[in-house]
Amino acid sequence: MAFVNHRFTLASRPIGMPKRTDWSYEEETVRELHEGELLIKILFISLDPAMRGWMKQNRSYVPPVPIGEVMRALALGQVVASRNPNFAVGKYVSGTFGVQEYFLSEGKGLIEADPRLAPLPTFLNVLGMTGMTAYFGLLETGQPRLGDTVVVSAAAGAVGSVVGQIAKIKGCRAVGIAGGADKCGYLVADLGFDAIIDYKSEDVTEALRKTCPQGINIYFDNVGGDILEAALANLARGARVVICGAISQYNNTGPVHGPSNYLSLLVSRATMKGMLVFDYADRYAHAVQEMAGWMAAGKLKSREHVVEGLETFPDTFLKLFRGENLGKLILKVAAD
Amino acid sequence: MAFVNHRFTLASRPIGMPKRTDWSYEEETVRELHEGELLIKILFISLDPAMRGWMKQNRSYVPPVPIGEVMRALALGQVVASRNPNFAVGKYVSGTFGVQEYFLSEGKGLIEADPRLAPLPTFLNVLGMTGMTAYFGLLETGQPRLGDTVVVSAAAGAVGSVVGQIAKIKGCRAVGIAGGADKCGYLVADLGFDAIIDYKSEDVTEALRKTCPQGINIYFDNVGGDILEAALANLARGARVVICGAISQYNNTGPVHGPSNYLSLLVSRATMKGMLVFDYADRYAHAVQEMAGWMAAGKLKSREHVVEGLETFPDTFLKLFRGENLGKLILKVAAD
Repeated sequence: MAFVNHRFTLASRPIGMPKRTDWSYEEETVRELHEGELLIKILFISLDPAMRGWMKQNRSYVPPVPIGEVMRALALGQVVASRNPNFAVGKYVSGTFGVQEYFLSEGKGLIEADPRLAPLPTFLNVLGMTGMTAYFGLLETGQPRLGDTVVVSAAAGAVGSVVGQIAKIKGCRAVGIAGGADKCGYLVADLGFDAIIDYKSEDVTEALRKTCPQGINIYFDNVGGDILEAALANLARGARVVICGAISQYNNTGPVHGPSNYLSLLVSRATMKGMLVFDYADRYAHAVQEMAGWMAAGKLKSREHVVEGLETFPDTFLKLFRGENLGKLILKVAAD
Repeated sequence: MAFVNHRFTLASRPIGMPKRTDWSYEEETVRELHEGELLIKILFISLDPAMRGWMKQNRSYVPPVPIGEVMRALALGQVVASRNPNFAVGKYVSGTFGVQEYFLSEGKGLIEADPRLAPLPTFLNVLGMTGMTAYFGLLETGQPRLGDTVVVSAAAGAVGSVVGQIAKIKGCRAVGIAGGADKCGYLVADLGFDAIIDYKSEDVTEALRKTCPQGINIYFDNVGGDILEAALANLARGARVVICGAISQYNNTGPVHGPSNYLSLLVSRATMKGMLVFDYADRYAHAVQEMAGWMAAGKLKSREHVVEGLETFPDTFLKLFRGENLGKLILKVAAD
């Protein structure tokens, strides 16, 4: 039985916002499995801001995607053929499978997903890498204390929405920064944020001053740029600033806009710390268990923004940078 | 007996580099002491980069110096008249006395200096606020571990030269960044730095890459700007960046130059933390004792750059921003 795979490979390194022509859409026949290998049919692909960084030439925490290779992405799929005794046909697994329909695996780096625990897309969201990022970024890097004011940017995004909800679970005040009335309403009404600042219609520095009169104890930054500066201008003494991402800066063609008021770290005796979720890999299983418990108890909601069709990838990916997704952006590639 | 005081008051808030006309030089007769007061004859005035910040309108960790008030400065002097039983005539004390010849005190916020322990100017240097800044900034905020590579900017300055020496005492490798061959030679030959980068003649980013092949474990920043960026580009995993000052930015008329590569905190899982020495006031006495012990053992050297004459203050102060001082800059106001 021959499987035909369609995939997006990286054709050129984008300048500014990626274009359709930065990828090639290709068709190939999947080769026969060798001993120890398995074939995964991809059902859902996770679209994340970090993917923009992987397209750049300069080495970061992972090497860049080579030109001509499949575009790197996290995904979830089902085993459809196997010569590996650890992974039987029918199992659901997640891993770095790329933007394509089939992934041929040697069985390494796979995480099993149990569909009885939660719907499959959840394993690319709250119970996946973005959920882990929120969990370890807030709890380990942010070190929340009861009564802290926690501010998170890109609050309607996959990481931000979970950060706010965990902050509430830990007895903190959760303040989100998001763009547009729809997102802001959703975060307060559905996810229980205490307050939301709409960066599209409000002066964020001024709004933070009013919303956080005692100052910000934890600022969880996903965006960088002006919003990071607005938060730095409103820190409480001893604040922790978690640097998780900087989506506002990823498509810059000029130099990154560094926080010109970083000396407020001195005035506020504050700490700014970078975090990468991969450092906590040995604790994912425990975190998934705890997060699944919070979901079952109705304390933590997982919302996905699902777009169908592998071929829509180049355009769907850009929703992240246009602020068009509400919840975790996921590409549905095949029916379960 | 009437004492005549000369003093510099703040006449206007400087734009860019301060000018002579930003201060007024005034003469006044010191009034009679009330019960509980004492009069201090100022011998040495400490000139510090932080004073530039105190001249600005915006409130920082201390309120700005009001227009028309004496310019704020740390100083050391001798009690010449006293109606306070805790401070007898003849005692040496340090405190925030201002840029003037006499300070009338109610006896609060004074620290006694014992001239048998060290020469008097040392109490404005290694055993004073800049020494305390180096001590707590490196040991508490930086958390050095045996074998760490510690990089410090403005390494020939009052704080930097002590940071490097304490790093050596703690078994770290000390790398300084300073300007000019004189300073660089002094730091290696006299103070025992392992390596020095001359920012006036070298590409600092490239030089740090060569000098610190394993990356920087602790970067102690006194300067900000391009040198902070060069250090952030060379961090080791888990590095600590101590934000102590930003002398390169204090006279900016435009916005402060924030570190455009602050996302290296994420790549390196590094921490950037601001520190203010005043937070450690209750531990100064212990630190002075330990530092005096290191000095007596020949492990820690205190070097002062003394300029004579109160009237030279406006010009002498600018030596800090022109990089003209080697060691702690001190204005000698009167003979002991």
